[in-house]
Amino acid sequence: MFSKSTYLKRRQVLQSKLGSGLVLLLGNEESGMNYRDNVYSFRQDSTFLYYFGIDHPSLTAVIDMDNNREIIFGDELTIDDIVWTGPKEPLAEKAGKVGVTEVKPASAIAGLLKDALSRGQAIHFLPPYRGEHYLKLQEWLHVSPAEAAQKASVSLIKAVVSMRSNKTEEEVVELEKAVNTSIDMHLAFMRETRAGMTEKAIAGKLQSIAIGQGGDISYPIILTVNGEILHTHARDLAIRDGQMALCDAGAETAMHYCGDLTRTIPVGKTFTTLQREMYEIVLHAQETAIAACKPGVLFKDIHTLACTQLVDGMKQMGVVKGDPAEAVAHDVHTLFFQCGLGHMMGLDVHDMENLGEQYVGYTEDLQKGTAFGWKSLRLGRALEPGFVVTVEPGLYLIPTLIDRWKAENKLAQFIDYNRLESFRDFTGIRIEDNLLITESGNRVLGKELVKSVADVEGLRG
Amino acid sequence: MFSKSTYLKRRQVLQSKLGSGLVLLLGNEESGMNYRDNVYSFRQDSTFLYYFGIDHPSLTAVIDMDNNREIIFGDELTIDDIVWTGPKEPLAEKAGKVGVTEVKPASAIAGLLKDALSRGQAIHFLPPYRGEHYLKLQEWLHVSPAEAAQKASVSLIKAVVSMRSNKTEEEVVELEKAVNTSIDMHLAFMRETRAGMTEKAIAGKLQSIAIGQGGDISYPIILTVNGEILHTHARDLAIRDGQMALCDAGAETAMHYCGDLTRTIPVGKTFTTLQREMYEIVLHAQETAIAACKPGVLFKDIHTLACTQLVDGMKQMGVVKGDPAEAVAHDVHTLFFQCGLGHMMGLDVHDMENLGEQYVGYTEDLQKGTAFGWKSLRLGRALEPGFVVTVEPGLYLIPTLIDRWKAENKLAQFIDYNRLESFRDFTGIRIEDNLLITESGNRVLGKELVKSVADVEGLRG
Repeated sequence: MFSKSTYLKRRQVLQSKLGSGLVLLLGNEESGMNYRDNVYSFRQDSTFLYYFGIDHPSLTAVIDMDNNREIIFGDELTIDDIVWTGPKEPLAEKAGKVGVTEVKPASAIAGLLKDALSRGQAIHFLPPYRGEHYLKLQEWLHVSPAEAAQKASVSLIKAVVSMRSNKTEEEVVELEKAVNTSIDMHLAFMRETRAGMTEKAIAGKLQSIAIGQGGDISYPIILTVNGEILHTHARDLAIRDGQMALCDAGAETAMHYCGDLTRTIPVGKTFTTLQREMYEIVLHAQETAIAACKPGVLFKDIHTLACTQLVDGMKQMGVVKGDPAEAVAHDVHTLFFQCGLGHMMGLDVHDMENLGEQYVGYTEDLQKGTAFGWKSLRLGRALEPGFVVTVEPGLYLIPTLIDRWKAENKLAQFIDYNRLESFRDFTGIRIEDNLLITESGNRVLGKELVKSVADVEGLRG
Repeated sequence: MFSKSTYLKRRQVLQSKLGSGLVLLLGNEESGMNYRDNVYSFRQDSTFLYYFGIDHPSLTAVIDMDNNREIIFGDELTIDDIVWTGPKEPLAEKAGKVGVTEVKPASAIAGLLKDALSRGQAIHFLPPYRGEHYLKLQEWLHVSPAEAAQKASVSLIKAVVSMRSNKTEEEVVELEKAVNTSIDMHLAFMRETRAGMTEKAIAGKLQSIAIGQGGDISYPIILTVNGEILHTHARDLAIRDGQMALCDAGAETAMHYCGDLTRTIPVGKTFTTLQREMYEIVLHAQETAIAACKPGVLFKDIHTLACTQLVDGMKQMGVVKGDPAEAVAHDVHTLFFQCGLGHMMGLDVHDMENLGEQYVGYTEDLQKGTAFGWKSLRLGRALEPGFVVTVEPGLYLIPTLIDRWKAENKLAQFIDYNRLESFRDFTGIRIEDNLLITESGNRVLGKELVKSVADVEGLRG
């Protein structure tokens, strides 16, 4: 938890941005796996954490701007509870640490909101993403599940996004801690992965590092020899010499700030010639993109820059023909790089994703594209100091996609489909780092995590 | 997944028990942590797994007994999805493997249920435990969240409980696999725990073993030097010589059958004299209870037997006075042993807990007690061949509870409160194994996991 003044200040700024009405922030509930009391690891809502800091289930926070009240609703443990849980810090004390003096029982929220509704007060809430959010909004505000998302407050969303986007120094310290733990996970991956291991055994090991350092994983680990499958969670394969292994894994700290890194390594000691050539295309694209990250530059343009580098590389591999920039203008890159170059990172690994990419990654003047590839670019807007972003280009040879394009003879002026056939089973490569945008440019967060071919092979000795 | 005939048979038996109407089984959804797409590890509903076997999110199953139809509702991946997920087995093929030939898109369920309602067909569903269950029941059946639990079908609950309670041979094989992985976790705990480690570092290591063997943990690991706190999830302490560490941890297999074991060890190489004496009281109670587990015996009576052994031990420690059986009749044991001796185990670690303990652990003729201690005994009914249960007595010295009883001078004819003071900071011990009830008695599941003082100390060398 940060100091009391951090939370007081944040809420003060939020109030000054919104002006009037009532802000309703839903804390998260414990989440049952196969029955109510067998719960997943508790994850508090990130915006609740940002303004109220209390990492505890079944809380609701209200900022009544019209009446200058801040209230946390939740129940204190009874002495019967304490027999089972051991002594705990009372909620009132927790609230005091974030500068909230008014604490009420959970049952009081319904009445307070009813009164606010009857007074005609505007009630600002954020888009729901858990079943319990929908149930609460329905019960307390008579907002049906079907309309809950569209009734979320755009002014609240914009105010929250404007604040959470620019990380303060104390937030950067936490983020760097998360990145350093993520790097420890990747060092274990890069040093200890051996042929014959299963993907899941390695993933389990990496998760234990995140837990051991006081947090947990910030998203489900992708650990695969099929790096071209962007959303793979299959991890049953034993990895083999000659393959590459891709690891996309990050930790979150006890305060829930996230890291998000990717490395791709040879399962054997060295890359094959083809793997090395392809790896260096991705690495060059990544380094070029990182060098371009600075305030004022559209991340969309850096994405285009990286795409051009990737296409240029695939031209050198004999797969693409013609001018790389022109090819990118025709979306040729989406055959190899179907997703975005990166995204915001913070209390969420895709920071504020639940608030809507149109607000987080774009502006009224810059809307997200709708075409294949572009619609997966979560961040397009101009970078600002304090933004923390990922830069993660890749090359993904997806047989399903290759077959589809080839059947359509799509963009055949740019693609040598015969040559492409020999890359059909290449799989995929991604290299990802986390950057803080500074006044003058950027800084890659965390201690060093090697990525050159020579350095990676050095770790595989 | 078991063979097709297993699932066909189970549904046939279910139909023969229920007779008429429509069974609606809600599969689970992916569960977002901090936004919709950042998901916890998927956990399918256990009853859905039991009858339909498909371990995949966003499915609904219907057995229309009046029209002899079995339908699985869910959406096939589109070719666009496959670009992101890689090729996947189609839902229709998965359904075929469990003997279901009728597969319909997810959107078709609403209409089917509407028709069934308008025909006046009885629709049997189970008690909801996730937000999404409530939302679906509301949308499809117009059952409000407030009334969903009480509108659950008691006849369906009873039919499911009657089937899932008695494990078949193939289920026992899976359960034993889960127990053996759980034993591997405990062996790592018993061998590798050293002073200076944090509770969470050890817990992370154990979770990685569960993941590495193809499943995950079956419940949040309790790993603590405060074994008396029954519901502790705090794991920030570094453990110290002289303390005991209690580990309550279990794995579930890829098929989601669970294990649930507890061991308590000295952090140093040996127990102190007091620790050893208390440990042997618990061990004796556990072994006595295990010996008593056989068909026809009320588990409630075995609980009482274990309580009597614990109280007898505490009498030898000079804390309890008078006749142990009489003391137990007065609930003196609840000062040291506040919870139940054990519970059913299967696809859920507390098997079928979401269906209601009154149906799973008790019968119409044997209701659960309401007094402190007894209300926490999840299982009371007569054991039957095929039941899999935990046996997990303990001694828990809870300062809050000691203070409360002492202030009331409660049951002072049985308790030497002065003597008790020296046990105030003793913490707690639990020893837990998993048993299959056989025709003639019981069998402790899994390979050997030592528990005698000498054997435990042997592992601490």
